[in-house]
Amino acid sequence: MKSNETLNRLTGQCGEWLRGSGPESDIVISSRIRLARNLADFPFIRKCTPHDRSAIERTVREKLLPAKELSQLMYVNVDGLENLDRQFLVERQLISRELAESVGARSVAIDEQEKFSLMVNEEDHLRIQVMKSGLDLDQAWEQINEIDDILEARLRYAFHRRLGYLTACPTNVGTGMRVSVMVHLPALVLTRQLDRVFRSLQKISLAVRGLYGEGSQSMGDFYQVSNQITLGRSEIDLIKQVGDVVPVLIDYERRARNLLFSQSEKDLHDRVSRAYGILCTAQTISSEETMHLLSSVRMGINLGLIRDLEIPTINQLFIHTQPAHLQRIHGSELDTENRNIERAIYLQRHLRQGRQADGSETN
Amino acid sequence: MKSNETLNRLTGQCGEWLRGSGPESDIVISSRIRLARNLADFPFIRKCTPHDRSAIERTVREKLLPAKELSQLMYVNVDGLENLDRQFLVERQLISRELAESVGARSVAIDEQEKFSLMVNEEDHLRIQVMKSGLDLDQAWEQINEIDDILEARLRYAFHRRLGYLTACPTNVGTGMRVSVMVHLPALVLTRQLDRVFRSLQKISLAVRGLYGEGSQSMGDFYQVSNQITLGRSEIDLIKQVGDVVPVLIDYERRARNLLFSQSEKDLHDRVSRAYGILCTAQTISSEETMHLLSSVRMGINLGLIRDLEIPTINQLFIHTQPAHLQRIHGSELDTENRNIERAIYLQRHLRQGRQADGSETN
Repeated sequence: MKSNETLNRLTGQCGEWLRGSGPESDIVISSRIRLARNLADFPFIRKCTPHDRSAIERTVREKLLPAKELSQLMYVNVDGLENLDRQFLVERQLISRELAESVGARSVAIDEQEKFSLMVNEEDHLRIQVMKSGLDLDQAWEQINEIDDILEARLRYAFHRRLGYLTACPTNVGTGMRVSVMVHLPALVLTRQLDRVFRSLQKISLAVRGLYGEGSQSMGDFYQVSNQITLGRSEIDLIKQVGDVVPVLIDYERRARNLLFSQSEKDLHDRVSRAYGILCTAQTISSEETMHLLSSVRMGINLGLIRDLEIPTINQLFIHTQPAHLQRIHGSELDTENRNIERAIYLQRHLRQGRQADGSETN
Repeated sequence: MKSNETLNRLTGQCGEWLRGSGPESDIVISSRIRLARNLADFPFIRKCTPHDRSAIERTVREKLLPAKELSQLMYVNVDGLENLDRQFLVERQLISRELAESVGARSVAIDEQEKFSLMVNEEDHLRIQVMKSGLDLDQAWEQINEIDDILEARLRYAFHRRLGYLTACPTNVGTGMRVSVMVHLPALVLTRQLDRVFRSLQKISLAVRGLYGEGSQSMGDFYQVSNQITLGRSEIDLIKQVGDVVPVLIDYERRARNLLFSQSEKDLHDRVSRAYGILCTAQTISSEETMHLLSSVRMGINLGLIRDLEIPTINQLFIHTQPAHLQRIHGSELDTENRNIERAIYLQRHLRQGRQADGSETN
């Protein structure tokens, strides 16, 4: 399958992480585990010549393509993509910004349901990622462990008996694992409790980042909670550390929602209902405002304040109104002004479609 | 007809001044002329005993009731009204704040279509008012002149051969006439040209006031332009002075709308469309915000940016969402919080009803 066909196919679907199902999916968007791996026979990326990078890319492709278990993967040559298409894959959480913005031979393999992606020549030779909708770290671990075994049977990993997997950045040495859970915390934001909560997470060495990872601003009240340290910990420990803290976060967010609801249901209803109204009627709207309003609507649906929309509709809008998605769906590049207009048109069309047949807008 | 029946009847209709028809009705809401008159046989109101006031009220009623030409008038004893009902008549522009807030015998006679009202014992013994929808000062003058003749045939006015009609306040001496035109100037507000325009009006002795007269804040971008001086001018001069300036104001407002439209039709469309969206979805909303948003929607309809609503619907909402109207329609008194909720419910219901059958919200 050619890269363009693959991207067209992805454009038409929603992807695992925004499917909106799975445990605790009112608050937990997705669970993700990634493993950093390097090939023993090549220098780390930073020391690679362009020739090395090509050789790594070719090696991975040639060794993995024949594997029956990986036969459904779609390979995308990231180096050969237009800037817009790379941005599209970043928005989709299938490649990192770093992979999008670097140069030289690099690629990504993606499974049809976007549960799994394998980046080649990112910071490490290999970055394996498994995504699950909702809170489901155990399943994610089971699957990524299986995939890692399949890869390890075909590729010689850089591994040190005492240190574990060797990685380009020392913070990843050991398991090479990052466990992260994306949560939606609009009520903690509204009640101004977020800083306090995040400070306690940092004390126990958990990192909190925005929707698009390191350095990205929080958008739409989405936050990623993940481990910062991998050395000296087992995979099970890391999963447990993140997995134990998420129910606490969920509990905080639920309490904050209940507080808002009990203190002033009317004001909360007003906020989510107006957000819905603006999304349906704006004629030009930025990505940032869209995320902000969709976040309110999402909480409103979960609290039963908006009854004629469903979470998957909103999740799809979160991703489809991102700049690169919008342009791919539109079929051509658009400047900011025209993107904002196109986004408003897209929102109007899909929020109307998303409404159930009863014809009401809000309860 | 009892006062309460009269008020119930008024509650169910819209009134002449917001009918939304007449010349230039996209910008000119209404034309109004009022005459201040006093009875020769009584002292001015400020010098009246309670007994005098009652006598004036009774005299006017007894002399006018038998007049065939005035037989359709509804008499309301303002002194006997609840506070809420007095406020209702103020919102309706049928009595002044001063009449509502003063004490002692006082009343108002209103015709069925609310084109004419006669206040008794306001600042002067009689305040006669005629309203026309749109810009129609000539018709208003013709009608009020006729009514004044009917009254003068039955009541002895305080009149001085050289000075003209004598009034409680020296600024009204002469014709006792105030000519005022209510205009809707949202584009001049948006383009920040209003102060400049109003300063030039003041230089030619015209007053500019908000929706509810002297001292009232501008609400919903409505302004009343009227003469400040009556002494030494003829009625025809006064009408001409105001009547000549209104077309200039209309021209300024139209130019400002065209400017907004040509500079950024999209932003203008966005503004009016969002205003519409918020009005349809708010769950609690203040009177001030409602007026502000209705003003945008009104301009949007006039500019063809909103096609599924009509001006009379919006005009009715302007008046029916005022605090006293809202409470009368609801059937009981409401505190601010509950008024804001009731207002949101009223807006939702009527904006949906107001939509044309094509089902679209905006073009």
